[in-house]
Amino acid sequence: MADAAARPATFVPADPGFEPRVRDSFARQPFMATMGATLGTVAPGRVEVILPFDAKVTQQHGFFHGGAMGAIADVAGGYAAFSLFPADATVLTVEYKINIMAPGKGDRLVAEGVVLRAGRTLTVVRVDVHAEAGGTRIHCASGTQTLIRLDGRSDGKA
Amino acid sequence: MADAAARPATFVPADPGFEPRVRDSFARQPFMATMGATLGTVAPGRVEVILPFDAKVTQQHGFFHGGAMGAIADVAGGYAAFSLFPADATVLTVEYKINIMAPGKGDRLVAEGVVLRAGRTLTVVRVDVHAEAGGTRIHCASGTQTLIRLDGRSDGKA
Amino acid sequence: MADAAARPATFVPADPGFEPRVRDSFARQPFMATMGATLGTVAPGRVEVILPFDAKVTQQHGFFHGGAMGAIADVAGGYAAFSLFPADATVLTVEYKINIMAPGKGDRLVAEGVVLRAGRTLTVVRVDVHAEAGGTRIHCASGTQTLIRLDGRSDGKA
Amino acid sequence: MADAAARPATFVPADPGFEPRVRDSFARQPFMATMGATLGTVAPGRVEVILPFDAKVTQQHGFFHGGAMGAIADVAGGYAAFSLFPADATVLTVEYKINIMAPGKGDRLVAEGVVLRAGRTLTVVRVDVHAEAGGTRIHCASGTQTLIRLDGRSDGKA
Repeated sequence: MADAAARPATFVPADPGFEPRVRDSFARQPFMATMGATLGTVAPGRVEVILPFDAKVTQQHGFFHGGAMGAIADVAGGYAAFSLFPADATVLTVEYKINIMAPGKGDRLVAEGVVLRAGRTLTVVRVDVHAEAGGTRIHCASGTQTLIRLDGRSDGKA
Repeated sequence: MADAAARPATFVPADPGFEPRVRDSFARQPFMATMGATLGTVAPGRVEVILPFDAKVTQQHGFFHGGAMGAIADVAGGYAAFSLFPADATVLTVEYKINIMAPGKGDRLVAEGVVLRAGRTLTVVRVDVHAEAGGTRIHCASGTQTLIRLDGRSDGKA
Repeated sequence: MADAAARPATFVPADPGFEPRVRDSFARQPFMATMGATLGTVAPGRVEVILPFDAKVTQQHGFFHGGAMGAIADVAGGYAAFSLFPADATVLTVEYKINIMAPGKGDRLVAEGVVLRAGRTLTVVRVDVHAEAGGTRIHCASGTQTLIRLDGRSDGKA
Repeated sequence: MADAAARPATFVPADPGFEPRVRDSFARQPFMATMGATLGTVAPGRVEVILPFDAKVTQQHGFFHGGAMGAIADVAGGYAAFSLFPADATVLTVEYKINIMAPGKGDRLVAEGVVLRAGRTLTVVRVDVHAEAGGTRIHCASGTQTLIRLDGRSDGKA
């Protein structure tokens, strides 16, 4: 039964051009460039954001900063939702909650958002962050996020 | 990668008598009896609580009350953590967050808690609630919960 | 500045008959009757739910059950939002998060929901629970909740 | 009663040198420098983090990025807890939940963490973010955070 809950349904995107739409929007987020974050997988209802280790995103002990971890989790979840939207809609984060389960130690963080429920107005996403180093992979954060779809407001315009 | 996050590690319980310990503790919760809730599976790090439909646990539209859904999610998560504890420890909920994704319509609700991280002091649990009716199964709530272990305080004594 | 955040704006209800509308809806929730919960203050954007101590709402140590605490917090928050809605709208909980800060010991619990932001679609509410006994008052839980307004669906009809 | 919940108790810090200890630790967080964030008020159990507007912390519409908002909220809350700790303890975020109630538009964001409950092991903090511009002040985010105190591990050493 854990599996049933964890294995998300396959989603059919409303916009076949969802992948360039996600990648274009991500590229227009200066804060992601400031951090050095990039996009990984962009699938319908599932998006990864990757953060390579760099001193500029660390805290006082030299590990990835928890705020950086939260920021890429928020973005991965937001684009997981956005990937299922029609082309003329944009996305806003309503709220998110994240548990930090292990320190962010490693060569890179990978945040993955997976849509749990795609509603007309609200989308619920599960977000997980892993720290990768060499062959190891530590599950360092997990949470859920709620997003709202705003129709008739292309993401490209403020 | 979604799978890696979702498929929890196999846990070895510190107390081989974890199952009767969980069932005994659950049986001493009057509120669960008031609601008519029972225990389902009790495995190491994974516990189910089942709530059969009854008018007494409904809201104004005749569906399962969201508060009842939250209560069995809290209990399923708490016992998932407790199942991994040594025999002389008790558990307290630190916090939980739950997204209600669909109304609680059906013959019964099944709340399942699955441990994501078992630390010495804190345990993090993912909780999901499904509504079952006939052959259908709707994923109606999902959340995460943080619990604290209190050593040297048997659960049987206040 | 803490005060500015904490002191909510004064809200003008869309429906002058908000109080009987809230009280009528609450009275139609069988789960609240099962628990023995009643309404306290019903003001625009601020609603209290009171739970007198009774063995039927306790956990294994004889205190108020955390699930009962969460249930009345959810209901207080939901009606705080609902109090600001027009007469032809109903409310659904999107999600809530609650920190349990102290055990529920006392003669009664008082859950209070206070609206932080009332949007056209979404309302955000802060929820606090106090345990009262004699002259003392312990702040035992605090959280936030998101609710959605569904227009054209009177709360009186499923 | 809302006031009672919202007006936090006055806290007596365990370490009279709490303010330089907080300011020193903050200064050792490279991610805060990357963002351009600075400390505002540092009082016992109450800490502000200020983020002046700069293109490098924005999203695709030119407003403050939600991830930047979350990051300064996390840090403000963490130091609010840390301000009450003894000198030989450090702090880790267990989890946080934040509702974004308005877009981050303005000259600067001010995140404020206020301790709700200071326990021996766990501290619970309420976090609010306001966007300030000219004379206006918009309450744009609110949440709660749980932190753990680690004794005998000076914050200055990893």
